[in-house]
Amino acid sequence: MSTAEETSGDDAPWGEVTPEAARRLLVAAVDAFAERGYHATTTRDIAGRAGMSPAALYIHYKTKEELLHRISKIGHDRALHLLQAEADGDGTAAERLAGAVRSFVRWHAERHTTARVVQYELDALGPEHRTEIVELRRRSDAVVRGIISEGVRAGEFDVPDIPGTTLAVLSLCIDVARWFNAQGSRTPDEVGALYADLVLRMVGAPPQP
Amino acid sequence: MSTAEETSGDDAPWGEVTPEAARRLLVAAVDAFAERGYHATTTRDIAGRAGMSPAALYIHYKTKEELLHRISKIGHDRALHLLQAEADGDGTAAERLAGAVRSFVRWHAERHTTARVVQYELDALGPEHRTEIVELRRRSDAVVRGIISEGVRAGEFDVPDIPGTTLAVLSLCIDVARWFNAQGSRTPDEVGALYADLVLRMVGAPPQP
Repeated sequence: MSTAEETSGDDAPWGEVTPEAARRLLVAAVDAFAERGYHATTTRDIAGRAGMSPAALYIHYKTKEELLHRISKIGHDRALHLLQAEADGDGTAAERLAGAVRSFVRWHAERHTTARVVQYELDALGPEHRTEIVELRRRSDAVVRGIISEGVRAGEFDVPDIPGTTLAVLSLCIDVARWFNAQGSRTPDEVGALYADLVLRMVGAPPQP
Repeated sequence: MSTAEETSGDDAPWGEVTPEAARRLLVAAVDAFAERGYHATTTRDIAGRAGMSPAALYIHYKTKEELLHRISKIGHDRALHLLQAEADGDGTAAERLAGAVRSFVRWHAERHTTARVVQYELDALGPEHRTEIVELRRRSDAVVRGIISEGVRAGEFDVPDIPGTTLAVLSLCIDVARWFNAQGSRTPDEVGALYADLVLRMVGAPPQP
């Protein structure tokens, strides 16, 4: 029922969702949304995938949109947290930017099914939830822009267009969710290492040891 | 009915689709797939958007999958053609790579609704059509890899991982379709110029004049 990706990663995915039935429904919703799209999925489909009745679903979630919001909120919180942890670390701007890229790429690769829903179904959120999620995205953007700006100020980086480069760095990492294939030739860590190197080149950092 | 993007671009979009009714249905299908996803769209929805009856649709397309295949085939042919034209041009590898990025980005920005359908609904194609499209994608990949390899051989570029860098370059351009907003602060040409510069940095090319 659950996708292979849900067993990978360095922490229990959806561990914050309780009780267990609510978590099971969330995992089923991620799979259904990723496979058929939000609009083609019904709450009946989700309940069926979770081995539950539609009535049992409504105990935990009032609407399909509430499920999407929960998935999107947890995913965006997680992404922001990963970036912030790297930004707050010790080390040069280059080391922290490389760490942020590795961490963000790894998440989009290991959790690609979730990441696709989180990144591609934004338009299906209601206005209030959409505003909340857009604010989380602004904060993620600000974290990466902050590291790049620090690198420029410290003379480590040479970046003519800081907002544009920030957008490109995040975009490159996010698109991993589209093409990453767990059966492919590269592991999440390998893609993270490759992309960290490419991003340091983008910001004009000298090659890292 | 048709999206704003369909009026932009440097050539008549879908000009190869005739008669006019078939073209109108195709444009309606692009809009519907982009808005609600392939699986949530019915042939009735598409006919309705085109101001036609479902029976009239079946004169032109036997199935919904045939519409998606037609959209995907035209989109991928166009993308390959744009890249190939730049690869075949005069100039150094750096000039041709920059041209390919500008052209590919511009297409994904100007035609972002179409590009989203083309890039995100691959899994909805039937096996035979999917194989055909995957082959077109392999050829696009080979064109970009070819320019990068030539730059390395000529001593213009310094690229430790040519396939990985090719993947990243195409991925960066493709993701423009996800975030590009015609009301945003950057034009397709501006994004193309920014990304061409970032990609030259990725391949270790000296700054261009």
